[in-house]
Amino acid sequence: MAKRRVAILGSTGSVGRQALDVIARHRDRFVVVGLAAGRNEALWREQVAAFEPDVATLGALDGLGGLHRVAAESGADIVLAATDGSVAFEAVFAAVAAGIDIAVANKELVVAAGELLFAQAAKSGARLMPVDSEHSAIFQCLVGEPHDRIASIVLTASGGPFWDADADAIRNATVADALRHPTWNMGTKNTIDSASLMNKGLEVIEASRFFALPGDRIEVLVHRTSIAHGLVIFTDGNVKAQLAFPDMRLPIGYALAYPDRLPGPTPSDALTALGAELGAKVTSMTFERPDIARFPCLGLAYGALERGGTAPAVLSAANEVAVAAFVNNEISFGAIPECIAAALNAVPRKELSLDAVREADRSARAAAAVAVAQHRLEFRSV
Amino acid sequence: MAKRRVAILGSTGSVGRQALDVIARHRDRFVVVGLAAGRNEALWREQVAAFEPDVATLGALDGLGGLHRVAAESGADIVLAATDGSVAFEAVFAAVAAGIDIAVANKELVVAAGELLFAQAAKSGARLMPVDSEHSAIFQCLVGEPHDRIASIVLTASGGPFWDADADAIRNATVADALRHPTWNMGTKNTIDSASLMNKGLEVIEASRFFALPGDRIEVLVHRTSIAHGLVIFTDGNVKAQLAFPDMRLPIGYALAYPDRLPGPTPSDALTALGAELGAKVTSMTFERPDIARFPCLGLAYGALERGGTAPAVLSAANEVAVAAFVNNEISFGAIPECIAAALNAVPRKELSLDAVREADRSARAAAAVAVAQHRLEFRSV
Repeated sequence: MAKRRVAILGSTGSVGRQALDVIARHRDRFVVVGLAAGRNEALWREQVAAFEPDVATLGALDGLGGLHRVAAESGADIVLAATDGSVAFEAVFAAVAAGIDIAVANKELVVAAGELLFAQAAKSGARLMPVDSEHSAIFQCLVGEPHDRIASIVLTASGGPFWDADADAIRNATVADALRHPTWNMGTKNTIDSASLMNKGLEVIEASRFFALPGDRIEVLVHRTSIAHGLVIFTDGNVKAQLAFPDMRLPIGYALAYPDRLPGPTPSDALTALGAELGAKVTSMTFERPDIARFPCLGLAYGALERGGTAPAVLSAANEVAVAAFVNNEISFGAIPECIAAALNAVPRKELSLDAVREADRSARAAAAVAVAQHRLEFRSV
Repeated sequence: MAKRRVAILGSTGSVGRQALDVIARHRDRFVVVGLAAGRNEALWREQVAAFEPDVATLGALDGLGGLHRVAAESGADIVLAATDGSVAFEAVFAAVAAGIDIAVANKELVVAAGELLFAQAAKSGARLMPVDSEHSAIFQCLVGEPHDRIASIVLTASGGPFWDADADAIRNATVADALRHPTWNMGTKNTIDSASLMNKGLEVIEASRFFALPGDRIEVLVHRTSIAHGLVIFTDGNVKAQLAFPDMRLPIGYALAYPDRLPGPTPSDALTALGAELGAKVTSMTFERPDIARFPCLGLAYGALERGGTAPAVLSAANEVAVAAFVNNEISFGAIPECIAAALNAVPRKELSLDAVREADRSARAAAAVAVAQHRLEFRSV
């Protein structure tokens, strides 16, 4: 079997590093042909020495062109898109246009420009595999299934640190409160998004693009133990669920090996751990509906999905600005959805194009900054 | 789309009737070409009038030849094998040899002669779809998946009425106690088998045949709410589970429509019910390992699977005799596994052939009857 040639955009980030860990365990199946990182030169040099890719670029030295070279000119069979934000949009689109498969961890890309991306992939024949655990779950449950028999899908949510808190306590939560995530170990921005359930809202939009389903057929259920990551409800009354220990290397490995699965050993004994969890004692799984009243970000995301066009891009960009302001102690936790709502109201919805997405992103950040400034005054006066 | 031509062996039994209910809801997809029943002539006449099959036979009138004509000479695309015991073995083998697909609800067939059946199907190209809810669950989870990446599978069990009872109470349970099944509504024999977990033991053997896995890769977990029916643990650490409301029409519909799924409406609003169960309030699912000490029938089944050859046929036949004796108040509940163990010891293991299965069945019934007679004396003297 020929080794699968992998290029990674964002190799020094959390997903990039975990992908290299998976690849290091399966050197007989994968070879790294490209590595692109941003600013962490020391780690990038280590990775280049360890994996000897044909093309290796660093944002600080090579600029955006480096991403393009790794994505589209490294001879990759599959590109792992694991940068944050919009920096790699052009590079990923170039790879997709060239028919190269993409393992998609770059959530903003799918939220803001997913429809363009999937249209491009349909033309070129490139396959897009999700890396987010929830989307990987749905993707796995849909293998071999007829798309027209999907009744609805369910994304699970851990519920975050505020699931048992009342509305007032949530609005006035501190940064330290919001950073106490019960199960997943993620970066600051993602952890705050988990606390507000915006993370889940963005995932609803992402799921709509990946699985070609409208928002009213994508449900969110809070599942505190993070064992079941996604469920598909079929028209015939049967339901399929994917379960796994919360370890990002599992969905990463699935995306890289698809449609095969890795033969094991599984990273960090995830299999044994889950087996023990399921069998050695009583394992309990609960599912609850979230309420939009306490978690307005989730409602904003469904609204942006329904409006379509550039609205999801505005939502995502405004959220970034608001979360950064919250982490800087400039605004309250409760002001995050208010700033996003202000941006959604201020920026006119446009039809989707890459240029329109870029413009919406800029306008949304400006509008959110204005809203943040207003809330900053209120916050300080409290 | 041409309608799928369905023949049913055992049309007046529980599975047969539910299959006709599914077909009646999907007349645009299915046409009934054959109906074979045993003794319930009144219901059989009603069914014949309602579905107008090309071939209709009644055991009381047509003997075993009737089953053969419905299975192999009705022009069926798919035969639902839904008789009990071994009466339809030859008819089903004839259909498989002719390349006709089989929806298999006849558990004894797979337990006693599964290896022969699957070998025959591999030759003729006939597809075998399981109807048991647990096996349907695993079958659904394996759609599109690579077989060599299965680490193990899990069959769930309701636990039956004695799950919380201690060993002494179980041994001395009355027939009325054993007939109180928490979730499924089944016939007497199946309900007793659920109480002893022999039902699950037979399903382990059935699963071994359906999915070509040894007993040490087939696990049983007790799951009281009967929502999850089966799980597949893959080598890469991911797990897939199938969930559904306990309604036999779901796995029956899946087996008949495979590889498609029925478009809905689902029978008895199973979808809405499960949706409500999953979402409208907190749903809890628990999983526990059963202990062989309290449920020795499960251990006997694993043992018979490991011995192979005719041992599973002996297990199944001896169990029938022992359960009938228990239901007749001749022996205690605790004597059921003892009679089966006696038969397994008394009947020599033979290599598998249809003749060897028939002989093992006869010998096992005789050996079990001897054991029952001994236990009857003890039971009366208590």
